Amino acid sequence: MKFQQETGYEYVEGGVCAADGFCANGCHCGLDPRPDKNDLGIIYSEKLCNAAAVYTTNKVKGAPILVTKKNLDATDGKARAVIVNSKNANTCNADGEEKAWRMCVLTAQELKITPEEVIVASTGVIGQALPIEPIAEHIGRLAAGLAPENHGEAAAAIMTTDTVKKEVAVSFRLNGKICRLGGMAKGSGMIHPNMATTLNFVTTDAAISAKMLDRALHDIVKVTYNCLSIDGDTSTNDMVCILANGKAGNPEITAEDESYEVFKKALYLVLMHLTKMLAADGEGASKMLECTCTGAPDLDTAIAAAKSVIGSSLVKSAMFGADANCGRILCALGYSDTDLDMSKVDVELASEKGSVLVCRDGNGLAFSEEEAAAVLAEEEIEIRIQLNQGNVSAKAWGCDLTYDYVKINADYRS
Amino acid sequence: MKFQQETGYEYVEGGVCAADGFCANGCHCGLDPRPDKNDLGIIYSEKLCNAAAVYTTNKVKGAPILVTKKNLDATDGKARAVIVNSKNANTCNADGEEKAWRMCVLTAQELKITPEEVIVASTGVIGQALPIEPIAEHIGRLAAGLAPENHGEAAAAIMTTDTVKKEVAVSFRLNGKICRLGGMAKGSGMIHPNMATTLNFVTTDAAISAKMLDRALHDIVKVTYNCLSIDGDTSTNDMVCILANGKAGNPEITAEDESYEVFKKALYLVLMHLTKMLAADGEGASKMLECTCTGAPDLDTAIAAAKSVIGSSLVKSAMFGADANCGRILCALGYSDTDLDMSKVDVELASEKGSVLVCRDGNGLAFSEEEAAAVLAEEEIEIRIQLNQGNVSAKAWGCDLTYDYVKINADYRS
Repeated sequence: MKFQQETGYEYVEGGVCAADGFCANGCHCGLDPRPDKNDLGIIYSEKLCNAAAVYTTNKVKGAPILVTKKNLDATDGKARAVIVNSKNANTCNADGEEKAWRMCVLTAQELKITPEEVIVASTGVIGQALPIEPIAEHIGRLAAGLAPENHGEAAAAIMTTDTVKKEVAVSFRLNGKICRLGGMAKGSGMIHPNMATTLNFVTTDAAISAKMLDRALHDIVKVTYNCLSIDGDTSTNDMVCILANGKAGNPEITAEDESYEVFKKALYLVLMHLTKMLAADGEGASKMLECTCTGAPDLDTAIAAAKSVIGSSLVKSAMFGADANCGRILCALGYSDTDLDMSKVDVELASEKGSVLVCRDGNGLAFSEEEAAAVLAEEEIEIRIQLNQGNVSAKAWGCDLTYDYVKINADYRS
Repeated sequence: MKFQQETGYEYVEGGVCAADGFCANGCHCGLDPRPDKNDLGIIYSEKLCNAAAVYTTNKVKGAPILVTKKNLDATDGKARAVIVNSKNANTCNADGEEKAWRMCVLTAQELKITPEEVIVASTGVIGQALPIEPIAEHIGRLAAGLAPENHGEAAAAIMTTDTVKKEVAVSFRLNGKICRLGGMAKGSGMIHPNMATTLNFVTTDAAISAKMLDRALHDIVKVTYNCLSIDGDTSTNDMVCILANGKAGNPEITAEDESYEVFKKALYLVLMHLTKMLAADGEGASKMLECTCTGAPDLDTAIAAAKSVIGSSLVKSAMFGADANCGRILCALGYSDTDLDMSKVDVELASEKGSVLVCRDGNGLAFSEEEAAAVLAEEEIEIRIQLNQGNVSAKAWGCDLTYDYVKINADYRS
């Protein structure tokens, strides 16, 4: 996936360790039966960080979410490390919180920090007891191998049905100081975002207060990760967190000033890229879908409309079949939670091969099926919706619905 | 599918013509390229009927919905005929209402009634102009062939991706008079009910006022058809309508008395059976899923919880794979729009082969995978959820998600 070019921001290598002062590692501890599959990952910062997190809105919250939240509350938004495992979500288990806290304690002992400074996350099967022994046995070796160049090992450790590692980082300047912001993610752009855990870990060496970090994260998650697929429903273990260690040496951002906007744009570029990677690596996906909704009266309407289209299984199936079925797009707009005037809506389908207008003023148009099929044969498809009832726009991302999605999910536990 | 036995109600043949005084017909007029596929159907009552309808809540409403609504408003809830075509939804077309009205006029001319007494419906592709000529050319022959024994021809005319005709009828007694109530339906228990048009046409010879008919229909649709799949989202053309001609000779039902309850139960049995048929014939479905939610504090909570589980693509995929994945069920309850206390929830999976408790007090249980797989290998699966926080229960119905769903929907238009 191409990184979106923006003046003042440069793509850099290093993922979650691109920022100065961060190192990471990953290993196979034995939770996953595949002997070569990393299933335990760690991130560590030399300096205590300001930290912020956005959690799942599901009423069932994974035990690691509950423990992380308590820790960040106890430290007033400070953290120095992340410990994360895959294969077992440690959720809906009677001893879940105890095990999650134990992961923090084990990590803190190795790193000589306090357990409350550890962010803990788990992803995998729900409702099966988490074996703590494999983690306890490998945490020493994991911590001993911490290094900036091991960012990929950590990114590999959080993968479940993911087929590619998801990492990205940018460099930018704040008051003349070079800053870096990078992240790693896991999750698949499944039918709904409620369907599989998505974890995002972001680090930066920019100096920013915990309060402004929290504000920026919430604003950017709203227009990136929360626009992946449909409706804000989330899995039990979803979490996006960010650590800022201030090593870049810029004056700390403490208000919504120009530096804050520069920082927020960096966060947008990284989270948007990870979101698109999640969409493109959707379970069984053969195409990445981007829905751009323009001409909305407000942001919530633009987001709701774009997400409704991206979340429609019939739209997704049609895109898999390269079928320019504008009726399904209009239908999905029609059941979105908005007050749209459908008689003003235009719809265009686009890709690198060109674009086809399929609907004007809410009515289907005649178009060349051949041309449309050529546009939709590409791997990245844009559904452009002009609502013609305002000036606000938003995007949502998803993927097509394929045979392989069903195959992957028919027997995920084994 | 077995008809649910209830004392006082007997299954009878005849579908939408089981009630006295109704006849029907269907033919191939040429909208559908398959030469033997009926694509135009008609229902007619000897006597003017009280009529009621429930329409889609989609903001995009098919032209036939708009015209039917106007007609029933104009006649104050009276109708004598239904005209319906498949293959083209006559929706999102500039001339849609004109064409839908034209269908009423053509039908009325043949039947010597007024166009306002005709209920019109269309199902199929959205956004393509409806050719009216094939309908105009065949309406005479269609009307000439009206007969009670042709109920199956009408039921065949509304099928799209349906693999079986959906008809059912019951007889019951009101004040000693034998009454009949029967219906036909089309639609597939797709991923969401928003995904494909569902049409239900019900007729009865019971005498009931238009007002009470409307009330009964709304109450019963809420706990049957609106509990098919997920979330009340509906396609552009969904409609459930009922015609009551009073030929049974019972004293007209005009209040919520005992007779009303007997009538409502008959309507429940017919609409529930059709709903289960729709679920079982879901696009590509291999299993019918019934989720029973008991112990809810109120009906809305029970319905929302049951529908959230039935609508989850991950639950549906797991059922296809006979995988007793209780985590996905808990996750779906967790993102349902309810205030559930998840720590009280028990979950059991059941079929004709027995039952397996997979969750107690919100935590996953160890169970025999072999036993669970045997239970889930059946074609009708019940997901029993005991919320343990009240005394109200509700059911929702759906189907598993299979390879064939994707295949059917990847290129529906061609």
